[in-house]
Amino acid sequence: MNKRKNVIDRLKIGSLQKGAHNLITDVAGVAVGHVTVASNDMQTGVTVVMPTPDNVFVSKCVAASEVINGFGKTLGTIQIEELGQLESPIALTNTLNVGKVSDALVAYMLEACEQESVRLKSFNPIVCECNDSYLNAIEKRVIDEQMVHQAIRSAATVFEEGAVGGGRGMSCHQLKGGIGSSSRQFELDGECYTVGVLVQANYGRMEDLMVAGVPIGSKLRHAIDAQHGIKSENASDHSIDKGSIIIIVATDLPVSHRQLKRMLRRTTVGIARVGGYIGNGSGEIAIGFSTANRIPHEPESSVITVKMLSETKMDMPFRAVAEATEEAVLHALIYADTVVGVEAHYREGLLEALKKYEIEGLA
Amino acid sequence: MNKRKNVIDRLKIGSLQKGAHNLITDVAGVAVGHVTVASNDMQTGVTVVMPTPDNVFVSKCVAASEVINGFGKTLGTIQIEELGQLESPIALTNTLNVGKVSDALVAYMLEACEQESVRLKSFNPIVCECNDSYLNAIEKRVIDEQMVHQAIRSAATVFEEGAVGGGRGMSCHQLKGGIGSSSRQFELDGECYTVGVLVQANYGRMEDLMVAGVPIGSKLRHAIDAQHGIKSENASDHSIDKGSIIIIVATDLPVSHRQLKRMLRRTTVGIARVGGYIGNGSGEIAIGFSTANRIPHEPESSVITVKMLSETKMDMPFRAVAEATEEAVLHALIYADTVVGVEAHYREGLLEALKKYEIEGLA
Amino acid sequence: MNKRKNVIDRLKIGSLQKGAHNLITDVAGVAVGHVTVASNDMQTGVTVVMPTPDNVFVSKCVAASEVINGFGKTLGTIQIEELGQLESPIALTNTLNVGKVSDALVAYMLEACEQESVRLKSFNPIVCECNDSYLNAIEKRVIDEQMVHQAIRSAATVFEEGAVGGGRGMSCHQLKGGIGSSSRQFELDGECYTVGVLVQANYGRMEDLMVAGVPIGSKLRHAIDAQHGIKSENASDHSIDKGSIIIIVATDLPVSHRQLKRMLRRTTVGIARVGGYIGNGSGEIAIGFSTANRIPHEPESSVITVKMLSETKMDMPFRAVAEATEEAVLHALIYADTVVGVEAHYREGLLEALKKYEIEGLA
Amino acid sequence: MNKRKNVIDRLKIGSLQKGAHNLITDVAGVAVGHVTVASNDMQTGVTVVMPTPDNVFVSKCVAASEVINGFGKTLGTIQIEELGQLESPIALTNTLNVGKVSDALVAYMLEACEQESVRLKSFNPIVCECNDSYLNAIEKRVIDEQMVHQAIRSAATVFEEGAVGGGRGMSCHQLKGGIGSSSRQFELDGECYTVGVLVQANYGRMEDLMVAGVPIGSKLRHAIDAQHGIKSENASDHSIDKGSIIIIVATDLPVSHRQLKRMLRRTTVGIARVGGYIGNGSGEIAIGFSTANRIPHEPESSVITVKMLSETKMDMPFRAVAEATEEAVLHALIYADTVVGVEAHYREGLLEALKKYEIEGLA
Repeated sequence: MNKRKNVIDRLKIGSLQKGAHNLITDVAGVAVGHVTVASNDMQTGVTVVMPTPDNVFVSKCVAASEVINGFGKTLGTIQIEELGQLESPIALTNTLNVGKVSDALVAYMLEACEQESVRLKSFNPIVCECNDSYLNAIEKRVIDEQMVHQAIRSAATVFEEGAVGGGRGMSCHQLKGGIGSSSRQFELDGECYTVGVLVQANYGRMEDLMVAGVPIGSKLRHAIDAQHGIKSENASDHSIDKGSIIIIVATDLPVSHRQLKRMLRRTTVGIARVGGYIGNGSGEIAIGFSTANRIPHEPESSVITVKMLSETKMDMPFRAVAEATEEAVLHALIYADTVVGVEAHYREGLLEALKKYEIEGLA
Repeated sequence: MNKRKNVIDRLKIGSLQKGAHNLITDVAGVAVGHVTVASNDMQTGVTVVMPTPDNVFVSKCVAASEVINGFGKTLGTIQIEELGQLESPIALTNTLNVGKVSDALVAYMLEACEQESVRLKSFNPIVCECNDSYLNAIEKRVIDEQMVHQAIRSAATVFEEGAVGGGRGMSCHQLKGGIGSSSRQFELDGECYTVGVLVQANYGRMEDLMVAGVPIGSKLRHAIDAQHGIKSENASDHSIDKGSIIIIVATDLPVSHRQLKRMLRRTTVGIARVGGYIGNGSGEIAIGFSTANRIPHEPESSVITVKMLSETKMDMPFRAVAEATEEAVLHALIYADTVVGVEAHYREGLLEALKKYEIEGLA
Repeated sequence: MNKRKNVIDRLKIGSLQKGAHNLITDVAGVAVGHVTVASNDMQTGVTVVMPTPDNVFVSKCVAASEVINGFGKTLGTIQIEELGQLESPIALTNTLNVGKVSDALVAYMLEACEQESVRLKSFNPIVCECNDSYLNAIEKRVIDEQMVHQAIRSAATVFEEGAVGGGRGMSCHQLKGGIGSSSRQFELDGECYTVGVLVQANYGRMEDLMVAGVPIGSKLRHAIDAQHGIKSENASDHSIDKGSIIIIVATDLPVSHRQLKRMLRRTTVGIARVGGYIGNGSGEIAIGFSTANRIPHEPESSVITVKMLSETKMDMPFRAVAEATEEAVLHALIYADTVVGVEAHYREGLLEALKKYEIEGLA
Repeated sequence: MNKRKNVIDRLKIGSLQKGAHNLITDVAGVAVGHVTVASNDMQTGVTVVMPTPDNVFVSKCVAASEVINGFGKTLGTIQIEELGQLESPIALTNTLNVGKVSDALVAYMLEACEQESVRLKSFNPIVCECNDSYLNAIEKRVIDEQMVHQAIRSAATVFEEGAVGGGRGMSCHQLKGGIGSSSRQFELDGECYTVGVLVQANYGRMEDLMVAGVPIGSKLRHAIDAQHGIKSENASDHSIDKGSIIIIVATDLPVSHRQLKRMLRRTTVGIARVGGYIGNGSGEIAIGFSTANRIPHEPESSVITVKMLSETKMDMPFRAVAEATEEAVLHALIYADTVVGVEAHYREGLLEALKKYEIEGLA
C-alpha cells in the first residue's frame, strides 16, 4: 500500500488544496463502510456513504442529483430532485442487487427510527449501481440485508479504496476499477470549506486513459497490442466505452439544492479529463449532499432560516468538484489490485499492468 | 358489481369513444394481474401491467415517464428517460415494498430470458408505489417474490378494479381508493387507435372531489360534518391533500419517446378535474409505453425504420389521456369497497358513503 | 364595468381568501402597465409586470419558470432556471414581437442602471408571448421601444383586465381572451402571505369552457350551432385547442427557486378546471418570482442568510396558485369586450355572447 | 493563414477521421456566413448557420438543445425541446443584441415564406449569444437587420474561423477567442456519416488551456507572470472562468430528438479537455440538428415514417461530438488574431502570444 500512497501523493490534479485524508470523509461527519464479497465467481460488494453521524431521516441534508447518462438503475433520485433532501445512507452496489440492498436500507432505517421513537411510514432509500457482470456472477444477487447492515456498522472516516465494497467487481478503462475518493478545500471570507468525492468507477476504454495529463492508457494499449501482435490501427475497433460511474459529492458548503445540482454537473469535467467519453451504455449518475443546512423531519415553524452561498462564489466549488472527481477515479485505478472472477475473466490493476509492460510516467 | 357497472356506464367524461372493455387492456397485448393481501392489519398488494404478450426485454417498447410531483420512490424512470425504452413489466405496490418487488421482477426476468437463451446481465425493473400506511402495516413489507410472480401469471385482459392488488390499502379523496382503468379510441386517417390508462389512486381531500363535474365530495363532506356537529368553516382545516397517484398510459399509437412524454403531461388535466391539487406529499408519476414500435434488445442494423405520429395530430391523443385518466380515477373510487385496516382505520367506499349520507348525483 | 365587477364578485373559485384588489398587485411592490394597439387590422399590445418598485437588476428576486407546453418563444427562462433569479421586468406581447420588445427592455435597463451608476454589460430580459394572428396583423410587429417604455411608466397597482395590453388580440375558448388577474391570501404562523397571478389567456375550445364548475362553453356551443343549423355531433370536428397561455405568479412567500417551481406546476390545475387540455399548439409557460428574498447584483459576503418556507407548508401555496390561476383566466374572459380585427375576424366577449344566446349561469 | 493551416493539420485530437473541410459544413447542405464589425470600440458581429439549402421553416430539421450552464440568453430552445424541430437559421451574436437579431430573423423568414406563398404567423427564431463586453461596446447593439440578412446571403460551405462574425469580440482562455469549427466522419453498416461542430468560444482561464494534451496555457501564464514579476502562487487569484460558449452540432445521422440531445451532452467532454471548468458566469448552450429526417410544416398524413439510429450505435456519434468540439475550440484560438477594442482592452491571438513568449509545443 505504501507504494500506492507514494504514487498518489505525487499526483498533481488541479490547483486546489487536498483535505487531510484526501477522502470524502474530510467533510466532517461523513463516514464510509464496505462489505466485499470475493469468492470464485462472486466478485462484488456494497459500499455505504453515511452522510451524517446522527439519523439522517430525522434531520435531513440538503441534496441534489444529476443524471449525466441514464443507462442506470439508481433508486431515489425522484424525491431528491423534488424535495432537495437526503434522508438515507447512500449505498453503492451492482445492478441486479438494487432491490435487495434498498430493502435492507428500509429495514435499517425502520430500526434506527424506532430507537428514536419516530414512526417511519415513508422513506426514500438511495441505492446506486454499476454493472460488474464481467467479473461477477451478477445474477446471484448475493448482497443481502446482513451485509448492508455490516457495511453501515463498519462505516468510518478512514476507509479502503480500490477493489473493495461495491467496487469489487468493477472495471475502469479496461483495467481494474472500483471505489476511489478525494477531496478539495478552499477559503471563502476566511472560512475553510471542503468538497469530497467518492466514485464507483466502472467505465472507459484503455486507450483513452489519461493520468494527470499523461496518455498512460494509449501507451499501455500499444504495449499490450504489440505483445499480442495486433496492428494498432485495428486494435480498438471493438472496444467501446461501456460501463458506468457513480459519483457521490459531499460538502460542508451552505448550498441550496439548485446550487448543489450545478456543482454535480461539473463532475463531467473530471471524468472527461481521465478519458471518459460518457458512452451509451453508461449509467453516470451524481448525487450530492450538504451537511451545512439540516432540515428537520417535522419542522416546528413555517419559515426557516438557511444560509446560502452567494451565486458569484460558485466557481471555486465547481473547480473543487472537477478536481476531486478526476482524482477520485485515479485513486480507484491506483488502489485496485488485479481481480480474477467469473468465467476466468480478469482485470489487471493499473500499477501491476504498468510494471508488467514497463510503462513509465506514474511510478 | 352490476350496480357499479351501471354507475360507470352512465358516467360521461369527455367526448371521445371508450374502448370495448373501457380498460387499459383495450390496447392490444396489454394484460393486468393482481395479488391482494387483505388480512387484519395487512391491507396491501401488488398489481402488474404486462406491456406485451411476449418478453418485453427481448423486444422492448418505446416508453417515457413524467414526474408530476416527485415525493415518491418509483424505480426505473432514469433509464426510461435516457433510452426511451421499457424492458420490464410495471409493478405497482406500497412505498416500503419497492425493494422486494423489484428484486422479484429481476428474478422473473432472469428466468424468462433463460427460457429464450438470452443472458440477462442488466435489467431495468419498473416499480411504482403509493403509501398505504393509513390502512396497512406498511413496515411489514409482506409482498414477496411469489406474490409478484403470481400477479404476473394471473395477468389477463379483463381484471378487477377498486380495492385490489396494489390498490388494496389506498385512500382517494379520503374515501377508499385503489386501482382504476379506462380507455379512449379515435381515428386518424381511417385507422383506429387506443389510449388506455390505469391508475393507483391514493390522493386528495374529500371536499375537492368532483364526479363528472358534480361536486359530490363537497356535499359528502358537509353531510358528514353536519352529522358530527362540525361547523363547515372549520371542517377542513387539518385535511391536506396527501398521498399520491401512479398513472400508467398504454397506447398503440406510433409515438416517439418525446411525444409519449408530452402525452403523459396531460394526465394532470384529468386529475385536476376529479379534484386533485397535486399536494406536496404526493408522488404523482406517470409512465407510458407504446406497443406500436418494438425495439429489439440486439438490433441487427445500425439504422432502423420507425413510424411516428405527425406532431400536428397530437391533440387527440392529449385529449384521450386527459379523459381516460379522469375516468380511471373515478373507476377506482366507484369500484372500491369499504376497507378496515391497521389500528381500526377505515376508508368508506364512495358508493357506500353516498348511500349512507343520502347524497344523490351519481347513482 | 360595474356589471362585470358584479359577475366577478359572485364567482366562487376554491376556498381561499382573495386579496384586497384580487389582482397580482396584491403582492406588495408589484405593478402592471399596458399599452394597447387597437386600430383596424392591428389588435395587439404589450403588458409589463414590474416585480419591484426599485431596480430589479440591482436587487434581484428569487424566480423560477416552468414550461407546461413548449410550443412558445418566451425569452429568458434559461437563466432564470440556472440562477433562480429575475433581474428584469416581465413583458407579455405577441409571438413575432419578442425581438423588438426584448430590445426595448435592454434599452430601458441600460438607462435605469446608468442612473444608479451601475454599468450593465449583461442582462436577461424576460419576454413572454402568445399568438394573436387570428385578430392581429402579427407580421407588422408594431410594438416598438416607445410603447414598451410607456407600458413600464404606466405600471400601477390598479390596472385594467380583458382585451388590453398584450391581451388585446388574444382568443380564449374561441371567445375574446386577454389579460386576467387574481390573488389568494392565507396565514402561516400568524403571518399573512399573498399569491398573485396574471395570465395572458389565448387557448381553448368553446365547448370545453367551464365557469366555476358550470359547463357554460358547452351550452354556448350548442346554442351557436343550433342557430347555424349544425348538428352537434359534427360541430366540433375541426376546432382544436390551439393557442397558448402565459401565467405570471408573484408572491411574498419566502420560497426558494425549487419551491417556486413546484408552485408553478400547479397552474395546470387551474387551467384544467377552466377547460384547458394543454393542446399541441400551445405555448403554456409559467414564470414566478418572490419578493421576500432579494439578491444583490454584487453581494458583499460569500454566504448570505435567507428565509425559506418549510416544505411541509407547501400545500397552501399550491392551492393558492391553482385557485388564482383558474380565476385569472375567468377574469380575462369576463372583462374582455368583443374585438374585430384583421380580415374581419372577430371574437365575442363572453358576457356579450351569453346575453346574445340567452345562456344563464353566470350573470 | 498558411501557417495556421499547418498548425491545425498537425493537431491530433481523438481518433476519428476529419471531414473534407474539417468544418461543420462537411454535413451536406449546411452553410455558414459572417458579418464582422471591427471599428474602434465596436468589435462584434453575427454568424449565421444555415441548416439546409432550402427553406427550413417549410421543411424542418429534427433538433435538440442542451443547457450545460444557463447563465445565458439564448432564444428558441423551449420550442426546440417541445417539438424536437428546428425551423430557423441559427444566429450567433453578442448578449445585448439578441432582440434585434431575432427580429431580423423574423423579417428574413417572413420574406422567405412569402416567396413560397406560405403565410408565416408563428416562427421560432434561434439566437445564441456570448458576452463580448471586454472588447466591444456591447451596449450599442450595432448588429442590425441588414447585417443579419447579409450574413445569411453570404453563407457558404467554406468560411473563415477566428475573430470573425459573432466571434469578433470574444475571449477564450484569456486569449483571443471566436468562431471555430471541425468535423468527424465514420461508417455504420457501410454508410459514411458526418458530425460537424461550430463554436463561439468565449470562456476559460489562461492557465487551464490544454492543446491536444499539452498544458500550453500554464506555460504561457508562467511566462507572462515572470515577465511582469508576479509570483506564480499569486498569479491567478483574480481570474475566474467567466464567459461562455455556444456549440452548434450538425449531423446527417438519422437521429431522434432524444438521441441528438444525448449527443449534445458530450460537447462537455470536448470543452473539459481544452481546459474548461464550466464556470458560474458561463452560458454554455448546445444546439443540434439532423439533416437526415426532414419534417414538413404541414404534414399530409397522420403517421410518418422516419429512420432512426439503433441506440447501441450511439458511441461513435458521442465520440465524434467530443472530438469535434475539442478541435473546434482550438481552431477558434489558432485562427484568431489579436484584437484591440473598447477602453484599449486587448486579447492576444494564441499563436502571436506563443511566439512572443517563445513557448513551444504547437508551432
